[in-house]
Amino acid sequence: MTTTLMALYRRPAGGEEAVATFRRRYAAEHLPLIRQVPGLQSLHVADVVRTFDDSDLLLVARLVFPDRATFDAALVSEPMRAAGRTLREIAPGLVTMVVVEPDTELGAVGDA
Amino acid sequence: MTTTLMALYRRPAGGEEAVATFRRRYAAEHLPLIRQVPGLQSLHVADVVRTFDDSDLLLVARLVFPDRATFDAALVSEPMRAAGRTLREIAPGLVTMVVVEPDTELGAVGDA
Repeated sequence: MTTTLMALYRRPAGGEEAVATFRRRYAAEHLPLIRQVPGLQSLHVADVVRTFDDSDLLLVARLVFPDRATFDAALVSEPMRAAGRTLREIAPGLVTMVVVEPDTELGAVGDA
Repeated sequence: MTTTLMALYRRPAGGEEAVATFRRRYAAEHLPLIRQVPGLQSLHVADVVRTFDDSDLLLVARLVFPDRATFDAALVSEPMRAAGRTLREIAPGLVTMVVVEPDTELGAVGDA
């Protein structure tokens, strides 16, 4: 069963210029480190294109690992630690991270 | 390009009993309606198994549609409207919904 680190990024203060700066640094400084994380099965970065209430979410990243043990090892790896440090610089106080695993009871439909 | 409706559920007040009640009603009353939504490509329900701050997220559901037009039609379909009504009953004030699409600039690695 996969284990996924989900990062929810809120919109920075400072309008579109602040968003552009965040995106530039996220791409140039953060993602290259994420791509080096050992055991990473897949990475998905998605833009929030619509909200239904007063949500200020901007971006959602999902880092998928094949299982819990691989994720646990990745979490303490040097690339992941370095990636965490860049986040504290480029998105201070703007990220919520949770670890999720498929709910086998509630199930799923369609492709994986 | 896929369009995904992401629903982030916060933990209800009332401890494990409230969580069990929410899960039961979510499975029995909400998901059957979701599975009837026209154009739904896949559904993924995941449990939050770990948080890194004071996040109170409990469950993350992703409803994946093949494209924006299919999603737009699904959003106003009768099963989706009925599903929305059940949510207001079983998880009042506990859901954040956003629509996300893959960020083609920031890219991805690994399988889709």
